[in-house]
Parts: sequence; C-alpha cells; structure tokens
Amino acid sequence: MREEFTKYIQNLQLSIVSHLESLDPSSPPFQVREWTRGEGGSGKACTFTSDSDDAVFEKAGVNISMINGKLPPPAIKQMALDHSSVRGYSADVGESLPFWAGGISMIIHPRNPNVPTFHANYRYFEILDSEGNVKSWWFGGITDLTPSYLFEEDIKHFHQTLKDICDSRGPDLYPAFKKSCDGYFFLKHRNEYRGIGGIRFDDLCDEPHSLLPPDSPRPRSVEDIFSYIQALGNSILPSYVPIVERRNKLEWTPVMRRWQTLRRGRYVEFNLIYDRGTKFGLATPGVDVENILVSMPQEVRWEYMSDLGAEGDGSEESKMVEVLKNAREWAV
Amino acid sequence: MREEFTKYIQNLQLSIVSHLESLDPSSPPFQVREWTRGEGGSGKACTFTSDSDDAVFEKAGVNISMINGKLPPPAIKQMALDHSSVRGYSADVGESLPFWAGGISMIIHPRNPNVPTFHANYRYFEILDSEGNVKSWWFGGITDLTPSYLFEEDIKHFHQTLKDICDSRGPDLYPAFKKSCDGYFFLKHRNEYRGIGGIRFDDLCDEPHSLLPPDSPRPRSVEDIFSYIQALGNSILPSYVPIVERRNKLEWTPVMRRWQTLRRGRYVEFNLIYDRGTKFGLATPGVDVENILVSMPQEVRWEYMSDLGAEGDGSEESKMVEVLKNAREWAV
Repeated sequence: MREEFTKYIQNLQLSIVSHLESLDPSSPPFQVREWTRGEGGSGKACTFTSDSDDAVFEKAGVNISMINGKLPPPAIKQMALDHSSVRGYSADVGESLPFWAGGISMIIHPRNPNVPTFHANYRYFEILDSEGNVKSWWFGGITDLTPSYLFEEDIKHFHQTLKDICDSRGPDLYPAFKKSCDGYFFLKHRNEYRGIGGIRFDDLCDEPHSLLPPDSPRPRSVEDIFSYIQALGNSILPSYVPIVERRNKLEWTPVMRRWQTLRRGRYVEFNLIYDRGTKFGLATPGVDVENILVSMPQEVRWEYMSDLGAEGDGSEESKMVEVLKNAREWAV
Repeated sequence: MREEFTKYIQNLQLSIVSHLESLDPSSPPFQVREWTRGEGGSGKACTFTSDSDDAVFEKAGVNISMINGKLPPPAIKQMALDHSSVRGYSADVGESLPFWAGGISMIIHPRNPNVPTFHANYRYFEILDSEGNVKSWWFGGITDLTPSYLFEEDIKHFHQTLKDICDSRGPDLYPAFKKSCDGYFFLKHRNEYRGIGGIRFDDLCDEPHSLLPPDSPRPRSVEDIFSYIQALGNSILPSYVPIVERRNKLEWTPVMRRWQTLRRGRYVEFNLIYDRGTKFGLATPGVDVENILVSMPQEVRWEYMSDLGAEGDGSEESKMVEVLKNAREWAV
C-alpha cells in the first residue's frame, strides 16, 4: 500500500499542479523543489507565489511527502489524541515508535477576495514493528473551504461534491465527517469557524471507527478505503475549480482586499494555535519548517476592533461572519 | 499596593501615549477605549493605527488592565510554570484561585523598517484567600526590542538603559533578566530569536528568586520592588524614543518593507505559538480577545523559501539574521 499510495499522490500532485497552472496561463509556472530528510524520507513541494493583482493565485502549495522515522514522545502524545491505535502502544513503546507517513497536502490562497481559500490533505500512515512489518495502518483526510465572501451556490456545490462521494460508500460518512470538520476548524477564542467546513476524518482502517456506527456500511478493507481516498483526492479539482472560474473575474475593491487579508489573519491564528498537523510538523525533528508553514497566506492583516464585518450591519462582510458563527448544512 | 500600582500605570499610560503622539503630530491621536469585564475588572486601551507611509507608527497599543476573578485550572497550570508560589497552591485549591492582576502592556509596530518594534509590559499580581487577603504577591516585567535592520548603536543604547537601572539595584539583576529574556523570545522551530532581547523577569517578591543568587543584593520589600518597577516603567520612553527619532527619517525601499513584514510574520509565530501572556489571555474567560491580539502587527507577510536574508549573502537583511541566530552581549 505504501508504494501504491505514493504513486497515487505523485500523479495527483502532477495533475493538480498542471490544472492550476492552466487556470492562470499568464503567470509563471509553479516552482518545484524536491527534498530529502536526513532522518528518512523525501518529498516534493510545488509552490506558487505572486504579488500581481492580475494573478489568479497569490500563494499556493501542492506538496507531497513520504517520511519514515521514529516518532518522538511529544509527537506520539499529539498523535494519540486522534488515534486509538497509537494510544494502545504509547504506554509500552518506551522512547519512540517507527512509522511511515505519506501524504498530499495543498493550500490555495487566491488573489481575488471573491475566490475562497482551499485546503485539502490526504494521508496514509503506518506504525511498524522492529522488523519493519506493519503493526497498524490508517488513512486520514481533510477537504475544507474558507471564503471571505458568501456565495451560497459555491458552498453548496463544494459540499455536494464531497457528500456525493461519501454517500456512494455509506450513508453515515458525510454527516460524521462534516461534523468532525466543523468541530475541528473552530477558533475557540473567537467563537467562530475558520471557514464553511468540508469533511475531515482520521484513523480510517479496518477497526471500528469512533465517528461511525459499528454496523454502518462503509469501506473497511485497505483496498476499499484506498478507493474512497482516491475518489476524494480526484474530487479536489471538481469541488474547487468551478468556483475559481465563476468568481475569479469579479471586480473587487481595496476594502474587499482588506477584508480578505483580515480573514487570513484568522486563518493564521487557527493554524498556529490549533492545527494538529502544524503542531505535529513543528515537533518532528528534521522536518523543514518551510514545508509546514507553506500554509501561511502571503499578505495578512490584523486590526484592533476592526469596523469591517460588524454583526448585523447588513454588509457583505457581516453576512460572511454570520455563517462563520453558525455552522449550516449545505448539501442535500 | 493594588491602588498605588494602579495609579502608577494609569499615569504612565497617559505619559507614554502623549509622548508617542508628540512624535507624530500629523497623524490622528490614539483612540481610547475603556472597558469593563463582566467577571470583574476594567481597563483602558489606547491604540493607534495608520495605513499611511508617512506615519511614524503603523499599529500601536498602550493598554492597562486591572482584573480580578478566579483563575480557572488551565490558567493555574499555565501560571504554575512560572510561579513557584502558584505551584504551592495548585494542588490544594480545588477548582479555582482568586486573584487580582494589574498591568501595563505596550507594543509599537512602526512604519519605517529602520525603526524597531518595541514591546514592554509591567505587572503586579496578587493571589487572595477567601476573605480577600493577600496570600502572595509578585511583580513581573518585560522590555524587549525587535529590529528588522541592524543598528548596533541602537541596540547598545537600549540594553545600556536597562542595564543601568538594573545595576543600580543589584549586580545580578541585568545578567539574569537579560538571559531570561533571550531564553524566552526564542522561536524553537526556526532556531532563532524573535529580536535582540532586553530584560524579562517574573515572580519578583520577598521570597528567594529562581534566577538570582540567594544572598545577592536586590530589591526585596514590596516598596523596593515597586520602586525598581517604576524605574523600569519610566525607562520605556528613554530606551526607545531616541531610536525612533534617529531612524524614522531614513529612506526605505519596497524590499525593506517586504523584509519588515516578513519579520513580522516571525513575530506573529512567536506570539501565537509560544507567548505565555497570549496563551494565558486566550484561556481567561471573559477577556476580550481584541485586547490580547492587539499585539499583532497590521501588515504581515509570509513567503515560502524567501530569498531575503539568506545566510552569508552580505545583505543588510542577512546581517540582522546573523544577530537573531546568535544572542550577544550589548551593554557594558
């Protein structure tokens, strides 16, 4: 599975990058940087950055990594929060736990404030015994969207795309994983959601899953779960690109740009204060911090007591805030 | 002491704000916002914000707060990291711990990249028994500086001002508190310091202090410590204003502005990932998040694998980075 998964994310990365490039033919292509990690593993970062108001994207990263090594105790502790299988080992492994982790991770911060920020990552994880045999494995993934301005039609399209795929594998997947996504991307100190959610799950394997009823139909074998993961990976472009195409030519004002960069401030707050992937990454020795913080937007702004988006002022900004304060159902 | 300290920080705030305003007569004055906290306490936030390249400051806050309440368990846990006196109670207080805390906190993000960011806070803390009597008390404080460009003369002036005050109260204060400041303002994930340090101490009271030799001469009584705190509070303007006046008229380029906003990204990383004041604030119920995150700079930038400030390229940016990688002694 390690090899199959690696091949899949390598191809998916190529396909996503070339499609994103085709959306903005007048900008330079993504920059490619392959890296290896002294402690074990390698990856390829495809990144884009532009300071032009005419560019479709401002900052984007589509990265894959395949790393192996030994999890240090703080990372085990962090991981055990999500993974019952790690909790099982964490008492008796002593100093560290050999693992292999592969994943594709992407984040897109567009230039036009009408186009939402997009984030997805899909990953496969193995815990190994001392001979290198797989002791346990699981898949995890997230696709979520963070608009600055509210276009209900876009959000419905995005959620419906995810729901259709989930529903084809079992009726309980979408509701459970949508709820998990809402619960995760929540800024407790602001009492607001980071965006309009999506789906999020972890620890998906042949064991019972904490978010799903025991007898519910769902992919259980490694092949069936991988097939589900591929369907979700393949939905990244169809869930997002139509929104980019629809909103990218809309006019925007300096105030809309200011609002977008303020919303990005919340994005940064979430990633640095709450995000487990970021915390896990920053705690893993030898991982390049640049590849973790590639998720940071380019231009970001904070204002004290900003007057933009005040509750009930009838503005487009406040309509977005209203949705970020109250999670909704978007798909049928 | 509660009243005396409150009066002191109220006057200090007025004096600092009016002096900062006098440095930039063509900008509007600071905005004043008084607030009260339902759970107990009040404060006054004096803030400034400008998007003009001609303004001296881009974002500034000089705030005081006097709050009382009960520390919730997470805040006790956080506080016990610094305060042996809290560690002593934390086992037997049960649910919460009544406290009073007063402080002045200021942060200045200037517009001109040649002018460093300045931060200081001085505070007085009391833990109370159920009758409201003081069970223990301490003072704490920080003054630190974060330049984007290196002017050794400025850093020497800044550190010398702090050292002279410390030395007048005891020879061990400056070395211990300078080291504590360096150790604190360190971004472990970047392996670099946030700025060029300053002084930092906490838990200063009539009990032995963990950073100081037991018999070393130093302020021990509440009056002597308060006098030391006042000397440090009164040094805020003399330590910083001459630097502002010296560098504020220097020319700067778009690249220098870009570098300044990138450095501010590190500032944000520190505050959201490591800063205990921020964590304590975000964990205290009823505290307005705006008053905690007033420390965030206005315009901030992240770049993936930025080419600015690369080691050994001979640029002014890399000279700054060199100092941020290796803490130095600046005062004699």
